[in-house]
Amino acid sequence: MESYHYLFDLAIILLSTKLFGLLTKRFNMPQVVGALLAGVILGPAVFGVMQETAFIKEVAEIGVIVLMFCAGMETDIQELKNSGKASFIIAVAGVLIPIAGGFAVAYFFNRPGMIESDAAGTVFLQNMFIGVILTATSVSITVETLKEIGKLKTASGNAILGAAIIDDILGIIALTIITSMADSSVNIVSVLLKIVAFFVFAVIAGYLFYKFYANWFEKSGKGMHRHSIVVFVFCLLMSYVAEEWFGVADITGAFIAGLIISCTQKTKYVAAKFDTVSYLLLSPVFFASIGLKVVLPEMNVILILFATILTVVAVLTKVVGCGLGAKLCKYKGKDCIRIGVGMVSRGEVALIVASKGEAVGLMGTNFLGPIVIVVLITTIITPILLKIVYKDAEDENSLPEGASGFAGGYEELEHYRKN
Amino acid sequence: MESYHYLFDLAIILLSTKLFGLLTKRFNMPQVVGALLAGVILGPAVFGVMQETAFIKEVAEIGVIVLMFCAGMETDIQELKNSGKASFIIAVAGVLIPIAGGFAVAYFFNRPGMIESDAAGTVFLQNMFIGVILTATSVSITVETLKEIGKLKTASGNAILGAAIIDDILGIIALTIITSMADSSVNIVSVLLKIVAFFVFAVIAGYLFYKFYANWFEKSGKGMHRHSIVVFVFCLLMSYVAEEWFGVADITGAFIAGLIISCTQKTKYVAAKFDTVSYLLLSPVFFASIGLKVVLPEMNVILILFATILTVVAVLTKVVGCGLGAKLCKYKGKDCIRIGVGMVSRGEVALIVASKGEAVGLMGTNFLGPIVIVVLITTIITPILLKIVYKDAEDENSLPEGASGFAGGYEELEHYRKN
Repeated sequence: MESYHYLFDLAIILLSTKLFGLLTKRFNMPQVVGALLAGVILGPAVFGVMQETAFIKEVAEIGVIVLMFCAGMETDIQELKNSGKASFIIAVAGVLIPIAGGFAVAYFFNRPGMIESDAAGTVFLQNMFIGVILTATSVSITVETLKEIGKLKTASGNAILGAAIIDDILGIIALTIITSMADSSVNIVSVLLKIVAFFVFAVIAGYLFYKFYANWFEKSGKGMHRHSIVVFVFCLLMSYVAEEWFGVADITGAFIAGLIISCTQKTKYVAAKFDTVSYLLLSPVFFASIGLKVVLPEMNVILILFATILTVVAVLTKVVGCGLGAKLCKYKGKDCIRIGVGMVSRGEVALIVASKGEAVGLMGTNFLGPIVIVVLITTIITPILLKIVYKDAEDENSLPEGASGFAGGYEELEHYRKN
Repeated sequence: MESYHYLFDLAIILLSTKLFGLLTKRFNMPQVVGALLAGVILGPAVFGVMQETAFIKEVAEIGVIVLMFCAGMETDIQELKNSGKASFIIAVAGVLIPIAGGFAVAYFFNRPGMIESDAAGTVFLQNMFIGVILTATSVSITVETLKEIGKLKTASGNAILGAAIIDDILGIIALTIITSMADSSVNIVSVLLKIVAFFVFAVIAGYLFYKFYANWFEKSGKGMHRHSIVVFVFCLLMSYVAEEWFGVADITGAFIAGLIISCTQKTKYVAAKFDTVSYLLLSPVFFASIGLKVVLPEMNVILILFATILTVVAVLTKVVGCGLGAKLCKYKGKDCIRIGVGMVSRGEVALIVASKGEAVGLMGTNFLGPIVIVVLITTIITPILLKIVYKDAEDENSLPEGASGFAGGYEELEHYRKN
């Protein structure tokens, strides 16, 4: 007789992530926090009633691929072009300074006698990777908060939205470069060549797919199911090819596949279908699987110190980085702080990056606990800080140059927090 | 580095089942036939480029659970009550005679020197199981054909719909009894006690769930995502508990969970969500996984003879069984034949039963090839036969007693054939 325990595991994951998600929502925190906590509580960190099986791992991987695919589909390239260089400058500053900050903190802690690492990559890459994790921005929580307090369609709101999307793309590039370098047997030149080759491949594949797909799409008005399946196949193949042919992270392939689909018509229909598959099956398994990996008994004093300092650095580098970027684009002083605070939340994006790094041997298992803490705190703290910095926002009306008309539409993972 | 091959497998399964599905659809055959063929062609029977991995197996199992769950949700208990005893009598006759026919054919072939069986159950149970497979009716193809020729809302059309639903329930009961007896170490009394215990458990669990769920459902109008998840958790737990606590097939648990949900409001909303998850991910994997199990090199002369005879018996026993049942209910001669022909298609239901039997050791692997052939032929032949027997159907207007007002609404798996 075969074992049916995975059915039970799946039921418990779905139930607990939802229950904790609704609980955190009740306390005005994003549901993602609850879903993570559910995994931590089920896993070895607390009760140890569940382990990460091969089934959970593979479903979780498809879950993160679909999440990144949806993020790509929801990126509006046209609006991005319109949002101008202000968002770009803010995003670049908001990526570089956190990388430096994360690297510096990891440099002090990631050594024998401090935090032991079981990662395979060089120490330099490992420390760099902590920096890359800190670049991630999960703007969905900010969007929700700004909507709530009615400040989404302001100068600072626009800047945050545009910058967060570019931040995603820069983050993907940083992740792609660093994970490609994880295999220490290859040299940097061949790694960079492979990355370039992948992007060339992606452009060609995307162009061919778009031509074929758009053509076919026009011909057949009804019977949309087949389109969702074709699109899904494209996403899976891009993910697979990225990993196996080019040594690039599968989620990079999925994100780019999503970007390509976002250029087609009726993206919304397809995205809604993936939304359903994601919230009903895949993404709860992904968030729980991260929580399951967290090991609390090894959370000694040094790890707690590391988590604390990294959290402070994570918050400060985003506020300072994005704030400086905004200053360069001549935003007002108060708006610079608002923009910086709006980018603090790391959310699911940082978790996606971290779990990838752990899988390819760029981050020791010991570091996962602190990273989860950083993500939880930055995610919880953002709505609170935002409400503070927007308290006296009577002056928020004029849009400065280069930040024109970018608002709304960014609903990455919104379903997950809403329901 | 981990392997990402399951991403590739998944992409190929989704692509090939859809392509072959569209191909068979073009030849006026159900898409399920194409999906099956895709698996056969990818698997050891033809090209052998794909194996059934643990990942495929587990996703397929969740797929079949969701299929049966949807079938349960789409069963309208109220309409079933209205459709009266005619449908019941037709269904009973259409279950008993195929069981006898299947048993008889298996009795001659399932023995050393003829077809070697690697199944664990007693020979009697194995032969009985072939009979149980033949009881299945997949009415969806008939419904589609009758709609096409405009004969769905006739006396015979109503009778077919009602009988097919009752046939599903009787089939589930037969499957439950025989799979529970698979473990030869237990005696028949304790098996029957466990089955009764499971149904008692299901009634209590269903009642409690319904009370709790209906209550909660009323309170929260918006935020329907959570309802889909709660319903899914209920389905998974019922499936798990059926298998692990009572030794009853997991799909029985899923079907009953679906029946319970069908009594709640807004079933349609929830069912639509599962529909999406099913066609976009789960059911292609299930159908392909069955095809992957078929081994053609072992299809020797005896197996082909067995397949041929079993196909003839499968068609005749349904036509004769259901036709006799209809005769007992005083349907006209022509309508009796129409009703019998309408119940011939075995479709996905027989495959679900067969794959279950193979998993619990009630059916030798050698038998899977012939069974797939039987399913394919009965499924392909039904629309053709139906069009013949309805050719001169001018006399189809009056509904006889006991078959009042049962039409429409039965759309099991319709999405799969439509798109």
